[in-house]
Amino acid sequence: MDQIGVVETQYLQFDGLRLESGGYLGPLIVAYETYGKFNDKKNNAVLVLHALSGDAHAAGLDENGRTGWWDGMIGPGKGIDTNKYFVICSNCLGGCKGTTGPTSINPDTGAAYGRSFPLITIGDMVNVQAMLVEKLGISKLHTVIGGSMGGMQALDWACRYSDKLESAVVIAATARLSPQGIAFNWVGRNAIRSDPVIPVNHSDSTTGDAKSGRGLAVARMIGHITYLSEETMQAKFGRKRTLRDMDGTTYSLGENEGLGGEFEIESYLQHKGSSFMERFDEDSYIIITKAIDYFDLVRQYGDMVSAFENITAKMFVISFTSDWLYPTSMSMAIVRALQAAKKHVSFVEVDLPYGHDSFLVPQGMPTLTRIVRGFLKGV
Amino acid sequence: MDQIGVVETQYLQFDGLRLESGGYLGPLIVAYETYGKFNDKKNNAVLVLHALSGDAHAAGLDENGRTGWWDGMIGPGKGIDTNKYFVICSNCLGGCKGTTGPTSINPDTGAAYGRSFPLITIGDMVNVQAMLVEKLGISKLHTVIGGSMGGMQALDWACRYSDKLESAVVIAATARLSPQGIAFNWVGRNAIRSDPVIPVNHSDSTTGDAKSGRGLAVARMIGHITYLSEETMQAKFGRKRTLRDMDGTTYSLGENEGLGGEFEIESYLQHKGSSFMERFDEDSYIIITKAIDYFDLVRQYGDMVSAFENITAKMFVISFTSDWLYPTSMSMAIVRALQAAKKHVSFVEVDLPYGHDSFLVPQGMPTLTRIVRGFLKGV
Repeated sequence: MDQIGVVETQYLQFDGLRLESGGYLGPLIVAYETYGKFNDKKNNAVLVLHALSGDAHAAGLDENGRTGWWDGMIGPGKGIDTNKYFVICSNCLGGCKGTTGPTSINPDTGAAYGRSFPLITIGDMVNVQAMLVEKLGISKLHTVIGGSMGGMQALDWACRYSDKLESAVVIAATARLSPQGIAFNWVGRNAIRSDPVIPVNHSDSTTGDAKSGRGLAVARMIGHITYLSEETMQAKFGRKRTLRDMDGTTYSLGENEGLGGEFEIESYLQHKGSSFMERFDEDSYIIITKAIDYFDLVRQYGDMVSAFENITAKMFVISFTSDWLYPTSMSMAIVRALQAAKKHVSFVEVDLPYGHDSFLVPQGMPTLTRIVRGFLKGV
Repeated sequence: MDQIGVVETQYLQFDGLRLESGGYLGPLIVAYETYGKFNDKKNNAVLVLHALSGDAHAAGLDENGRTGWWDGMIGPGKGIDTNKYFVICSNCLGGCKGTTGPTSINPDTGAAYGRSFPLITIGDMVNVQAMLVEKLGISKLHTVIGGSMGGMQALDWACRYSDKLESAVVIAATARLSPQGIAFNWVGRNAIRSDPVIPVNHSDSTTGDAKSGRGLAVARMIGHITYLSEETMQAKFGRKRTLRDMDGTTYSLGENEGLGGEFEIESYLQHKGSSFMERFDEDSYIIITKAIDYFDLVRQYGDMVSAFENITAKMFVISFTSDWLYPTSMSMAIVRALQAAKKHVSFVEVDLPYGHDSFLVPQGMPTLTRIVRGFLKGV
């Protein structure tokens, strides 16, 4: 089996975009990667949609040797087989990894948008992807597929561009985030706002580099707790300590508290939070979590059955037993509404213990590969 | 039915306390309130143990007219009947409401302990309570009762002072916090440390007043999400907005984002976080959550059955169906170990939808009153 080697991110520019909120955003740059080749009819394109912290680099290696976030799923002979499909992944609107977002230069000011980047919706993200897909000469996608926020986008694609896709795979997602999910995002943004990055000097705002203070680390830690199942937490971390006790019965309290945590779970979160600070922009985090909060097909269309009225795509909905952030009940609501709207829908609740992250972790790949490969074949 | 009227907090001073970590803390002040009267034999004393954010003011009105945190349970004819029992509630060691804690003056420096207050355990809190109980002339308590961290203390009392209590009521608690619980506390402390209070001037550290930056508000918001059940979130808040749309189909994005939240759940959390900042000290929050994290009867005694070996008290364990922070499984583990140790134990899983907060909210009082009153009678 060949591997996808080093992949270079590509960029396309557009004049701009009319946002759902009414404003206009331009110019518009879209960063994207592709894997595999078109067939003769150009009807083998699979659009991969990333989640909150993802980017265009879904598979293969980037110039720094970093593996794509879904390399386990995308490649020769893998679940999304690049020997068969032309696979596209773009950085979402509002992101900080090449597509226009808060780190991009605002042409009106000559400085990065930063906190003044306009609020956007999942629909805006999808509209940008549609512009990219059209520019690539694709009249109808074979599949759109994504998990979490990527699943929201896939669902929106099916409703919004009903004649431009054959199928959609909606993984660990929802037609609208729960109040608990809204609450966690709110706290994350509060953490960011109460501890933002302090620019060293004013010119920092023109560099366009991802910037964040410790507040983003806190927000990311909260996110990670919600992605993990209780089962995984117990199995992987339990109440294990980072330092070994001297005699097993007494212990020096607080020895590692300031240095990264006395418990293994604390050390894990500390590491995840700190590394995220290095690679993500806090304003992007705000913009993207707001878009996630806003997404509401019920509000947008009146009810879910109406939302799904115009869908022509074959739908595949996947949930995980251990996902408590986007629980199976949310996927079931989508499935029931699709059935009521008499649409073509398959559904699987996958019994994996890795929580909301089940669609991303290596241990989940064998099962997910089998399921996705099977569906794609049947399209 | 009479009411408890205005209650004055009382204070006792002790030389000091040898901490479980080995250090010595002195002098030691304990703030407490009492309701009801002793009987002739002085064997009708009920010790109430508060949770993370509680204080000595459990019932009646304080000088500012504020109602006690468990006024629904404690009073004439109530679940803990002050016509029958002499009820005591003290502020826990490490608290910021009168008992020695981070806001207390360190006699060595003349300034508040602040961040240098020593790390303490649930055991230290219980030892201080035992000193108070002895000073009040009580040789054997009728009951110790508490929820959440208060339940941990009640459990510790039964193990540690086995001959000094007739019974213990352990509500919504655990013999050791889950890794998920540790994780949430860790994130809360990180939020505090990354956005601490900025003292206006150095003398602020001598005032002894509760102080906190916005990090504590973030920590408290996280706490509140964990106390609420998904059901309560949906029923009470759903995806309701704080502002009404002009026409119901489109909306001005972000109108209220900076002012306190676009969604009702955000507005609720904002209010809870801000008001907590006004009344709680961030160093106390750190100290108390660390004590909660450390509490581990399995680690301390080798296993739970050994932990419960010396218990003579009648035990009553209560959990709530909708509590996902201290779920029923944790109470069941306590119950099974008590049974294996051949101890006297009753258990009830109460079907209330209010999450971990079920033992505190007014709507839970009728059920909890009936249950607790019945148990106390049988002691």
